[in-house]
Amino acid sequence: MKIAIDAMGGDNAPKEIVEGAVLAAKEFTDITLVLYGDEQKIKAYLPEGIANIEIVHTDEQIDSDDDPIKAVRRKKKASMVMAATAVKNKEADAIFSAGNTGALLTAGLLIIGRIKGIDRPGLLVTLPTINEENGTFQMMDVGANAECKPQNMNQFATLGSYYAKFVMGKSNPRVGLLNNGTEENKGNSLTKESYALLSENQDINFIGNVEARDLLQGAADVVVTDGFTGNAVLKTTEGTALSLMSLLKTNILESGLKGKVGGLLLKESLTSMKNMLDYSKYGGGVLFGLKAPVIKTHGSATREPVYQTIRQIRDILKSQVVPDLTAYYEEKAEHESTFIEN
Amino acid sequence: MKIAIDAMGGDNAPKEIVEGAVLAAKEFTDITLVLYGDEQKIKAYLPEGIANIEIVHTDEQIDSDDDPIKAVRRKKKASMVMAATAVKNKEADAIFSAGNTGALLTAGLLIIGRIKGIDRPGLLVTLPTINEENGTFQMMDVGANAECKPQNMNQFATLGSYYAKFVMGKSNPRVGLLNNGTEENKGNSLTKESYALLSENQDINFIGNVEARDLLQGAADVVVTDGFTGNAVLKTTEGTALSLMSLLKTNILESGLKGKVGGLLLKESLTSMKNMLDYSKYGGGVLFGLKAPVIKTHGSATREPVYQTIRQIRDILKSQVVPDLTAYYEEKAEHESTFIEN
Repeated sequence: MKIAIDAMGGDNAPKEIVEGAVLAAKEFTDITLVLYGDEQKIKAYLPEGIANIEIVHTDEQIDSDDDPIKAVRRKKKASMVMAATAVKNKEADAIFSAGNTGALLTAGLLIIGRIKGIDRPGLLVTLPTINEENGTFQMMDVGANAECKPQNMNQFATLGSYYAKFVMGKSNPRVGLLNNGTEENKGNSLTKESYALLSENQDINFIGNVEARDLLQGAADVVVTDGFTGNAVLKTTEGTALSLMSLLKTNILESGLKGKVGGLLLKESLTSMKNMLDYSKYGGGVLFGLKAPVIKTHGSATREPVYQTIRQIRDILKSQVVPDLTAYYEEKAEHESTFIEN
Repeated sequence: MKIAIDAMGGDNAPKEIVEGAVLAAKEFTDITLVLYGDEQKIKAYLPEGIANIEIVHTDEQIDSDDDPIKAVRRKKKASMVMAATAVKNKEADAIFSAGNTGALLTAGLLIIGRIKGIDRPGLLVTLPTINEENGTFQMMDVGANAECKPQNMNQFATLGSYYAKFVMGKSNPRVGLLNNGTEENKGNSLTKESYALLSENQDINFIGNVEARDLLQGAADVVVTDGFTGNAVLKTTEGTALSLMSLLKTNILESGLKGKVGGLLLKESLTSMKNMLDYSKYGGGVLFGLKAPVIKTHGSATREPVYQTIRQIRDILKSQVVPDLTAYYEEKAEHESTFIEN
């Protein structure tokens, strides 16, 4: 398994990217990591003698404020574009970047391309629940498509369900539609029409509408939503958790000696809570629905999340979820064309 | 000032509604509360000799699972419908219910009616920030309209801005559009078109797009959004806060003696944090854009939130925000008709 890595993407590139790659390369000897970027700068953080890390040198890179489409089309020698091209040419099996999100989505779509039968790939993230039995859930789309049609939502449901089965090992994942009420007739026109399609989708275990209030309780294993709402929900979860932790910290610091001692005694609890909320340990966002895994992690990612993301990509590759999805959609297309011919 | 109260609405009616009304009636002698509902049941919780509480008896009530439109049209003697009719007939100045939300929205629209010039009223809530300087913000719409047009969003901006000025006493409230990025060109077609309208709106202090991640930090005083997204963001905030508090509790309970002592020492901090997050102290959701204040509070509200909601309604009535808005839209309509005639 070969993973193409944009070593120049993100706020902490190439240092944290290279260091995360080193951690992963040492642990997983069944993968080879190819670092695209400035060889001199990469080598500064790369110890000698790691057999499963390669470097492909390039001077060019895509910046965070570059226009995504223009950058991907014009900067042919950018580290991200070269990494995506390697995947297209089957020289690598997946691509990972912490750089410009829009550019990575564009590179995924234009260079690597969609699985035949998927109209729009979506961004899938894995989030924790506070319910240990369920552990985690997938939400999709969290921002690739600000505008969605019911058929996109239905494809997200199938894609998310495949991910939960293959990569997360859930045998019969519960797929829920994010809506403003649990009753069948709730929602806007998009969720109402999506509800009808999801109900008829034979490939998923559709459990109906789920509300945003219940997601962290484990209301569903796969939460289907459009990219605008999903983005708002993801950012609200992050913002609320961060605000609460900072509020708690301020409260502890301002509550005198008693509070400070209390804070010290609870330090382990608070740290384990913070860790539980840190969803970067599940890896990055997967642009899912493409011919190969395309993974984006936070621009501010340090080596630990970079390592976790590479671990996640290895899991995805080992699970064979993308070839299986491709086969599924090809078979479906054949059935449909047979159906039309008859 | 007379407030019509649906004494039979909500999970804890009439007990908590009546007890909350009693608290408010005792504190605010400049208001009269009219309780609509079963006289016998109401009297069971009503001490003798409270001069500013009246009862209007009726046997009928709208249940939580009633179809909103049918219930409002057919149950003419329901406590909620009679309370709304009193407002329509100027026998009362505002209405409050903890009952069926859809029915209250319907009663507001059909019985009390819109301010001329407002196409769709929206549901406005007041939420806390963790930033003491800003204190609170208003978000609108959080669920009255699952489908919105740009002109609805623009009206929410004006309405919310009026509320922040008149009721919350902010001199120049910062109005932000909830979007999936802060740059001007971000969003779906609704937010892009809304951005253009808000930029041209002379009656507001538009500060551009705000992200869901930053709301609790006080990113804006008024957050404008469609009812579907607003509902998802509100419920995500609630769900994340509740999940975190329950996670912290579990962590403390499971962390042995050290953790328990720490928890005890931090009790005040944790309680003050919980109180800060409890936004029922700001009252209920205002269906704003109607000819009179229509206020909905949580179905599970106890007497304290009921009291707070009545306090809020008194603030709204004293602020004269609704007559002022009505005058503003009437004047605007005249200007526009003059403009068309010329």
